[in-house]
Amino acid sequence: MRVVGVDPGLTRMGVGVIEERDSALTALYSGTITTSPSDETSLRLAELMEGLEEVMAKYQPDAVAVEKVFFKLNVRTGVGAIQASGIALAAAARFGARVYEYAPLQVKQAVVGTGAATKDQVTFMVNRILKGVTPKGADAADALAIAITCLNSSKLEDLERSTR
Amino acid sequence: MRVVGVDPGLTRMGVGVIEERDSALTALYSGTITTSPSDETSLRLAELMEGLEEVMAKYQPDAVAVEKVFFKLNVRTGVGAIQASGIALAAAARFGARVYEYAPLQVKQAVVGTGAATKDQVTFMVNRILKGVTPKGADAADALAIAITCLNSSKLEDLERSTR
Repeated sequence: MRVVGVDPGLTRMGVGVIEERDSALTALYSGTITTSPSDETSLRLAELMEGLEEVMAKYQPDAVAVEKVFFKLNVRTGVGAIQASGIALAAAARFGARVYEYAPLQVKQAVVGTGAATKDQVTFMVNRILKGVTPKGADAADALAIAITCLNSSKLEDLERSTR
Repeated sequence: MRVVGVDPGLTRMGVGVIEERDSALTALYSGTITTSPSDETSLRLAELMEGLEEVMAKYQPDAVAVEKVFFKLNVRTGVGAIQASGIALAAAARFGARVYEYAPLQVKQAVVGTGAATKDQVTFMVNRILKGVTPKGADAADALAIAITCLNSSKLEDLERSTR
């Protein structure tokens, strides 16, 4: 199973692709799609969509996992991140992948084992868990963490199904 | 000039197309794209995008005007509406139209003359201003009101430009 993880943001959208090979998780791709705050929002959202479509076309994921965005005190950031998350979800559905959403707490718990994990701890564990590409920056690492969360959750679901 | 107006919403997205003909505004199309709350958000957002793409492909607008969505007390509704607005903006930019955003207050002022206008007053004025199609429902009327706001603002901009 191959999973694209997405950490939605209007200025920086983390994207990572992982796959299970020989019972090890391998990162096939890690990157950040960036847009310019001086451009119109509509153009920036279109650029994010095209960037994601390129990654999905290249790596042909079975599933796309998107981090849930919650309201923030900084309203401007919040609106852009929520719009970006909508773009990621729509792009994934249009591609035909299965789509999953995970709250930041779920991701931290799945990757570090505690919802109180710091960004550095998440990056550290992502690098320990994954073979392959090393993420550059917190958004790219988060995207891989989201993809790991998805693969581990799917494994659990399969296990539950097989033991019923 | 032909304008598509969009009143973003995840469950109900109002869409209207208007055009200036012989110095009168004519509504060419008025409708509401609906999605089912029982479907996954990703699918619903993809459906909204396809619905908008169909309207733009058919009516070939010069501009698309989208109502700005603000945070609401009902957080679930707020997130969906903001995601839907992102879809509308991205779809418009991908189509290649000029994209405008207007706050609800601007729309009410442009159509009724006061920011304190009720939904019924907006619908009443939309029907008075426009020849052509009659909107069904508040979301469809709002979308036409947003398109009217855009055409009137553009006229003002052109006027300002020509008198400089």
